[in-house]
Amino acid sequence: MKTRIGILGYGNLGRGTEIAVAAADDMELAAVFTRRDPAGVKILTQGVPVVNVSEIENWKDKIDVLVLCGGSATDLPVQTPKYAELFNVIDSFDTHARIPEHFANVDAAAKKGGKVGMISVGWDPGLFSLNRVYANAILPDGKDYTFWGKGVSQGHSDAIRRVKGVRNAKQYTIPVESALESVRNGENPELTTRQKHLRECFVVLEDGADAAQVEKEIKEMPNYFADYDTTVHFISEEELLRDHAGMAHGGFVFRSGRTGVNKENNHIIEYSLKLDSNPEFTTSVLVAYARAVKRMADEGMTGAKTVLDVPPAYLCSQSGDELRAHLL
Amino acid sequence: MKTRIGILGYGNLGRGTEIAVAAADDMELAAVFTRRDPAGVKILTQGVPVVNVSEIENWKDKIDVLVLCGGSATDLPVQTPKYAELFNVIDSFDTHARIPEHFANVDAAAKKGGKVGMISVGWDPGLFSLNRVYANAILPDGKDYTFWGKGVSQGHSDAIRRVKGVRNAKQYTIPVESALESVRNGENPELTTRQKHLRECFVVLEDGADAAQVEKEIKEMPNYFADYDTTVHFISEEELLRDHAGMAHGGFVFRSGRTGVNKENNHIIEYSLKLDSNPEFTTSVLVAYARAVKRMADEGMTGAKTVLDVPPAYLCSQSGDELRAHLL
Repeated sequence: MKTRIGILGYGNLGRGTEIAVAAADDMELAAVFTRRDPAGVKILTQGVPVVNVSEIENWKDKIDVLVLCGGSATDLPVQTPKYAELFNVIDSFDTHARIPEHFANVDAAAKKGGKVGMISVGWDPGLFSLNRVYANAILPDGKDYTFWGKGVSQGHSDAIRRVKGVRNAKQYTIPVESALESVRNGENPELTTRQKHLRECFVVLEDGADAAQVEKEIKEMPNYFADYDTTVHFISEEELLRDHAGMAHGGFVFRSGRTGVNKENNHIIEYSLKLDSNPEFTTSVLVAYARAVKRMADEGMTGAKTVLDVPPAYLCSQSGDELRAHLL
Repeated sequence: MKTRIGILGYGNLGRGTEIAVAAADDMELAAVFTRRDPAGVKILTQGVPVVNVSEIENWKDKIDVLVLCGGSATDLPVQTPKYAELFNVIDSFDTHARIPEHFANVDAAAKKGGKVGMISVGWDPGLFSLNRVYANAILPDGKDYTFWGKGVSQGHSDAIRRVKGVRNAKQYTIPVESALESVRNGENPELTTRQKHLRECFVVLEDGADAAQVEKEIKEMPNYFADYDTTVHFISEEELLRDHAGMAHGGFVFRSGRTGVNKENNHIIEYSLKLDSNPEFTTSVLVAYARAVKRMADEGMTGAKTVLDVPPAYLCSQSGDELRAHLL
């Protein structure tokens, strides 16, 4: 019997989850839940109901894993604990600083409901976290480096849009190539914020706005831009929509560590992602881990889990024998 | 209480294990077992006994995990099942084609003894396997690429040494840079054996040997060299020992996969290792997984396990709370 997936929230993540479920032989989409009027939500999959979230309790016995596709700022801190009492759930909560608090809330709710609640699944947190943990365990004496990009930072794009005179904007975070090379060469550099990433901004001005003033305000904005080498390009709204609508992203995780009687040997572990679509890749990770959630729930586990708690084989539909014969 | 580690076999892997255990705060080396006369084996750690393997049964209650540091060709197929009846064991068995058989033998023995027997831990099989499995689960529609090197292949070096007229030899496996670039660029190339790796040989001739004939025999050797672009350099024994004694190695695992309604988005996952010392890195992986073996045994698990069965958090001495706060 196929694993029955529910999706809550039908934006980029919801749509990506739907696509990833369709690509999985052992899963089927049972329903999409929305806060909007279901009549106004058109999904890709034929014959699957779109249901208002107010009716979600009626689906308790018809869904194996509910994939929560809301945002980390306000949706997931409420939704994940709430629905973990009713369903096995999985989310992509990505506010690193608030993970311990979110974990505790989901853990209590999931244990109360006898469910599994998996949080913070995606690529960072998610696959990058896995790589940091594996590499730290293997090379305890070393340094970690994480670089993001090239890709759009939503938070930085929003910050630019709040500047007076700005109509629209996209901001790319770009890793500094010479920093990547220095890490790859085993130089174990101490890198400042400025030495790790560049920030490139594409800005559409309001009519009559002062370009020089806008550029100055962006470049001097504390936390967001002041500590970086920032480039500002002024373009038309048409150019922004045409050239900067993509959702590509990526990044790099390194650990450079030493072994040997006199620490004479250096080792470099590098993990990198180059993604055409950030939401589709993130949801591909979510759906693989939804398979693990089902398996852990079937084994009787309950409570909050993260990628660090999941044996890799649990992500796969193949048997242990098949995995050992072909992928080990 | 620290995890008490035993080492069986004191070559490069045994020494590497000893160094990695010394670097772990939560472990201690209990004993080194050898088939040789213990009086002739000098280890690095003060105060730790070197014991003939004939006495190993006396150590049943004094060792939490026995790290088997023998070779995959003849040692481990016998040793791992044998000692899995008496101890929790871990090995680096790396003959991919024989893993299912080895797993079955170790599984039966470990279950009989109520122990955990973890096999095929290192970087390939091991970390590369993990990356293949994660990436296949996340991107089911895609292609895998594994490249090895630059590093010495022991099997190919041995094959050259069997050629008439050769006194000594080292062979480097080198990934073809243009192939790596093509994969990184998302071109999803179909690569022949020749397009993936180069083979570079450093050969010391016997006195009076025919260099041209030796070179021809190497380059035409089926399986080992005939399908590759091979370079042969003739050097002196002194040069070989001076310039080619290193144990550096490394490699790359890629998955390039598509998502999207029309498979319009490509994603590339790349994992790579650049290692100054192949044996020291391999044993760093073994020792991290020895920590997991102890934990799995403490939880009452028995039987054969591989890296695919281990939750990443089990490799770490830190608590789940610490890992979630700092590495997730």
